[in-house]
Amino acid sequence: MSREFDLIGRCFAPLAGPEGLGLLDDAALFSPTQGRDLVITKDVLTEGIHFLSDVDPVTLGWKALMVNLSDLAAKSASPRLYFVGLSAPKDTPDSWFEGFAEGLRAAQEAGGLTLAGGDSTGSTGPRTISITAIGECPAGAMIRRNGATVGDDIWVSGTLGDAALALGAMLKGGEPDAALRQRLEQPVARLELGTQLRGLATASADVSDGLIADAGHIAKASGVQMVVERTLLPVSEAALACLKENPGLDHCIWSGGDDYELVFTAPAFLREKILAAGTLAGVPVTRVGRVETGEGVVMVDQAGVPVQTGAGGYSHFGD
Amino acid sequence: MSREFDLIGRCFAPLAGPEGLGLLDDAALFSPTQGRDLVITKDVLTEGIHFLSDVDPVTLGWKALMVNLSDLAAKSASPRLYFVGLSAPKDTPDSWFEGFAEGLRAAQEAGGLTLAGGDSTGSTGPRTISITAIGECPAGAMIRRNGATVGDDIWVSGTLGDAALALGAMLKGGEPDAALRQRLEQPVARLELGTQLRGLATASADVSDGLIADAGHIAKASGVQMVVERTLLPVSEAALACLKENPGLDHCIWSGGDDYELVFTAPAFLREKILAAGTLAGVPVTRVGRVETGEGVVMVDQAGVPVQTGAGGYSHFGD
Repeated sequence: MSREFDLIGRCFAPLAGPEGLGLLDDAALFSPTQGRDLVITKDVLTEGIHFLSDVDPVTLGWKALMVNLSDLAAKSASPRLYFVGLSAPKDTPDSWFEGFAEGLRAAQEAGGLTLAGGDSTGSTGPRTISITAIGECPAGAMIRRNGATVGDDIWVSGTLGDAALALGAMLKGGEPDAALRQRLEQPVARLELGTQLRGLATASADVSDGLIADAGHIAKASGVQMVVERTLLPVSEAALACLKENPGLDHCIWSGGDDYELVFTAPAFLREKILAAGTLAGVPVTRVGRVETGEGVVMVDQAGVPVQTGAGGYSHFGD
Repeated sequence: MSREFDLIGRCFAPLAGPEGLGLLDDAALFSPTQGRDLVITKDVLTEGIHFLSDVDPVTLGWKALMVNLSDLAAKSASPRLYFVGLSAPKDTPDSWFEGFAEGLRAAQEAGGLTLAGGDSTGSTGPRTISITAIGECPAGAMIRRNGATVGDDIWVSGTLGDAALALGAMLKGGEPDAALRQRLEQPVARLELGTQLRGLATASADVSDGLIADAGHIAKASGVQMVVERTLLPVSEAALACLKENPGLDHCIWSGGDDYELVFTAPAFLREKILAAGTLAGVPVTRVGRVETGEGVVMVDQAGVPVQTGAGGYSHFGD
């Protein structure tokens, strides 16, 4: 048997659910549940851009799947299936595939979904991982980006900037605080919060490119302006300690990437219910601003005066 | 606006159907049709492995989508949606993305599906394309690989080896026959044939890794032996002319890749209906062998004596 099929059978077939047909067919077979919509997302991670070459493959497997589950969480969908596309050099050792599959397994167990198919190919260059994830929600219940309404509150889950601060320290050759590093390497999709926000949030996105960039996606899709107040942004104790030593890094809070929190909007009369949703989901939610008429994202200080945000998220092909 | 979002808006948003939400959300929203199963496939194409660096981007866009549609054809599914993941160096010119999108457009129009989402990222290395395609078929109608039964006929659509012969000539610096080259660069998924085979074929796969390899997938999944007769394999006139000059390349017929034909099995009493299905679909179908007890694929001569097949398909991570 070729090594390709040996790796599929040994590392990936054990992750497959019934829809994957043992990874022995040309395609997966999925019978959708009546009355449910499908929510489908796809993310690509490239070595040297999204992850460092020497990253632990278990960590990478976890994160590659979790970033897709974060998209499903933002849409209020429950994960069902995923597909993995993997390009890797021929000399990639078996242990790397085994570790990557172990990370996928942990993430799929946390997310409640199974592998349904994929493709693995050789590459002459960096490893590239492409995951497509499919979730379900009751028909009509998906929370889109385009429903934010003037007067709505803007909310954020968890804390912001932790992952960007950890990455910044690592790129400088330093060792980040363990709590910050965990946020970078082991993000946890806010799936339960996403479910709890069904029928409450008017718009939602996951914070993967930085708050300013992702709130900007809601602003654009909804035709509104998102006004966020800098002093209200939720920051962890570990991040505060890091910023005390490096005050110039405060932009990581609003324009760092890899937070995998949710930014969402909801009418002001639902404040109590939003807070209760956070409690039920076990993740704090913080009101950080208000939807106004206009466009784009404006960050203001306590007096309401706009402040500079600097870079507004990562662009893959330059500005 | 960043170049990334400009490219998405200009090149890819015009390809999106309603499920893609204008490519402005975190995910696609798809409401499946009641009584239909979903058939889902994913293929990865890597520069330097699946395509040459200087390939025309229009050709590449067409082929990248068509190879996925070929999987759907083999499963008797009608294409509905697709997702594109694209990794490319930052200095990739706009014209490349525009050409790639043009190729996708031609293929999606031929296949009757629309773009629903994706992700584009920078890369420090070769371009990598990952497509996930979703098709529909009536509940229970998907043709799997595991239904081949001892005594069934083995059939192949179209002709075999054309693409491998063209690639062989190009890799040697030669100019292949135009008909062979078109088969390599502009494969056409056998979607109509796949639909016509519903309820007739007992097992089916697409021939992408060579007949021996892909018939082998049916053999393995069905627990049978596939016996194919070399002299029955359908070969085009252009391939015959090429083989006359290069008789040592005859293995391209049964172990070359990139055919994107269908290999399928059906009971002998359905021969007339299979031929009629080919006629209705506008593609010739040829009976090339018989399903026996045993395992694997055996190729025999006219006297029934096994002949060597040589390499049995491409393996991405070595043998």
